[in-house]
Amino acid sequence: MANYAPEHFRWEAKDGVATITLTGVARKNPLTFESYAELRDTFRELAHASDIKAVVLTGSEGNFCSGGDVRDIIGPLTEMDTGGLLRFTRMTGELVKAMRGCPQPVIAAIDGVCVGAGAAIAVASDIRLGTPRAKVAFLFTRVGLAGCDMGCCAMLPRIIGQGRASELLFTGRTLEAQEAERWGFFNRLVEPEGLLDEARELAAGLAAGPNFAHGMTKTMLGQEWNMSLEVAIEAEAQAQALCMQTKDFERAYRAFLEKRRPEFEGD
Amino acid sequence: MANYAPEHFRWEAKDGVATITLTGVARKNPLTFESYAELRDTFRELAHASDIKAVVLTGSEGNFCSGGDVRDIIGPLTEMDTGGLLRFTRMTGELVKAMRGCPQPVIAAIDGVCVGAGAAIAVASDIRLGTPRAKVAFLFTRVGLAGCDMGCCAMLPRIIGQGRASELLFTGRTLEAQEAERWGFFNRLVEPEGLLDEARELAAGLAAGPNFAHGMTKTMLGQEWNMSLEVAIEAEAQAQALCMQTKDFERAYRAFLEKRRPEFEGD
Amino acid sequence: MANYAPEHFRWEAKDGVATITLTGVARKNPLTFESYAELRDTFRELAHASDIKAVVLTGSEGNFCSGGDVRDIIGPLTEMDTGGLLRFTRMTGELVKAMRGCPQPVIAAIDGVCVGAGAAIAVASDIRLGTPRAKVAFLFTRVGLAGCDMGCCAMLPRIIGQGRASELLFTGRTLEAQEAERWGFFNRLVEPEGLLDEARELAAGLAAGPNFAHGMTKTMLGQEWNMSLEVAIEAEAQAQALCMQTKDFERAYRAFLEKRRPEFEGD
Repeated sequence: MANYAPEHFRWEAKDGVATITLTGVARKNPLTFESYAELRDTFRELAHASDIKAVVLTGSEGNFCSGGDVRDIIGPLTEMDTGGLLRFTRMTGELVKAMRGCPQPVIAAIDGVCVGAGAAIAVASDIRLGTPRAKVAFLFTRVGLAGCDMGCCAMLPRIIGQGRASELLFTGRTLEAQEAERWGFFNRLVEPEGLLDEARELAAGLAAGPNFAHGMTKTMLGQEWNMSLEVAIEAEAQAQALCMQTKDFERAYRAFLEKRRPEFEGD
Repeated sequence: MANYAPEHFRWEAKDGVATITLTGVARKNPLTFESYAELRDTFRELAHASDIKAVVLTGSEGNFCSGGDVRDIIGPLTEMDTGGLLRFTRMTGELVKAMRGCPQPVIAAIDGVCVGAGAAIAVASDIRLGTPRAKVAFLFTRVGLAGCDMGCCAMLPRIIGQGRASELLFTGRTLEAQEAERWGFFNRLVEPEGLLDEARELAAGLAAGPNFAHGMTKTMLGQEWNMSLEVAIEAEAQAQALCMQTKDFERAYRAFLEKRRPEFEGD
Repeated sequence: MANYAPEHFRWEAKDGVATITLTGVARKNPLTFESYAELRDTFRELAHASDIKAVVLTGSEGNFCSGGDVRDIIGPLTEMDTGGLLRFTRMTGELVKAMRGCPQPVIAAIDGVCVGAGAAIAVASDIRLGTPRAKVAFLFTRVGLAGCDMGCCAMLPRIIGQGRASELLFTGRTLEAQEAERWGFFNRLVEPEGLLDEARELAAGLAAGPNFAHGMTKTMLGQEWNMSLEVAIEAEAQAQALCMQTKDFERAYRAFLEKRRPEFEGD
């Protein structure tokens, strides 16, 4: 997908790392019907893209994403019938499923505004880097809706705990960057000017492999949410036995014997 | 339920916010067979009370709750037969189910002692405000019992993490207020003199709506605990599509267009 | 099991507290095929050992455990067939199942290196004490493997949250001690010279009982992971009603009446 050219966001790919940049600076990079659908399709394609090993998800010019655009999305929704509404909420959910379903780790690089559905796609990412001025809010309640949007009631409590997630989803209040780092929402904070570089460096590290194993880590981190511990342990025994049959496992061992860094190839 | 008059605790209702105050200052507001049952019945009635939109749960005069009274509850339990014991533990569990089952967000305002079953009803609340002198302890082990009381082994790890919950439930040690805030048990700390006002202000904010959506947020925060992520996302798509058919969703959109705060009505 | 004499690690038992010390100082206490199997068998036997009430798990001379030995374990694995690999990953998983399946609380006392499968057995413990110089890393990725090893993708997110666990499992980076305490991986930090004493003191406190109840706490903390809240509450009602029929429950009540500390006997 190195030469992929989406219409509704920017795409760059280099050395196995794709950067998706949400656009629309005037409205702080909102999601629209079109960008939702194209993001969903993109992450679905990533499931089969052997040339992309890690993804950075970010926004343009100092903001991550302002969520579903009020005029472009919320207006039309207020006039839709039941079937249309469910088609819309399912489409937004499909984006999250696609983000969780592709084998590439997704690193969200978050500066400035990260609200509503923008906060939801941050939540759906694997790792989140923020800046000291990043502001996260689950604004659904402010537009008369519930916090259960795109999987947030399932995912956010697992990231920051049930009590803190409840407060954010009920009140829609802004979570400041330092607090977000303290709560485990952000993995760490980086100054704005260094954010994209640091996210890409982290992504490059993961893109260097072992990619088969990384894909398995991602699958199992999702798959085991509602397994019993007994079942999870058997599932991991099978998954890890699979990984032990990759050549990357052997490559790592040979590199160890030869006292050098392993070079993984993903098979 | 504005004029509800319970026998075993205080009840005030104003502008859609009910305040439940545990009483019995001499013994730091213990729970008794009677107050357990009446609390359970009250939260069950709240499921149908359209005039109450949010609940503050607090204790009298500097303490939250000392849990099941040793003389009044534990004494009789030591002489009960199997059936009687199970009827009791089920009743206490029914209180938690009722607290989780009503659509109103429950805000616990916790000063001083918060122990045993008192800590369990704090855990069963949606949001917890504490004071710097609040002390939380899961004392079950001290009376020869297990930490699995009223859902604590399921709920506490989801609030503060499995390792910290294990320590508190095995040892029964006191969790000090600052640590409790740091761990996500308390959403924040407030000075004792401001505690009730702050809890009521937070409750009033939630009581202002959107109430249908808040009820859905609460339902889904509980319901999704043991769903797979795939299933949770579909469940949220349906739940949010329902919320999009409320008038409150339209009210919010109109208020946005008219650049004013929305006034929610709960339908 | 007071006089138990394992071959591949040290075992001491005193006053109901067993201390398991991983050995092999030269390689920082690695796990080998033999020590894995003997640890698994030991924790399985603990399920029936009425003279051991709590377990301290630690390592020799300034390190906890360096995980599966690269030469002794990873070498042979690179040459194994599918069946052999699955037998190995299942055996390591069986160790975790046995640690979670015995009724004794397991306290890991962690100094220095705690990596790979060593980090996994730390995760499988109930409570973790660390030292300021402890270093934890889920190194699986460095040898070309996935983070889903011995239940880590299920357990680690429940201890430190999904976002932080994802980062550690994908990158294999070292978690420093202060950060580990802040994230809830370590319950607390202790200076190296006091670590073993403090772990044993904590274990002795738990060994003092109530042991039937502690075993039930441990069972339910694991069992309720993927129960719905409703089901968990009923499960706890039954479990606690069982505990209320122990003599330890009565002993605690009598001690309360007589204003003395209860002496638990485990029945």
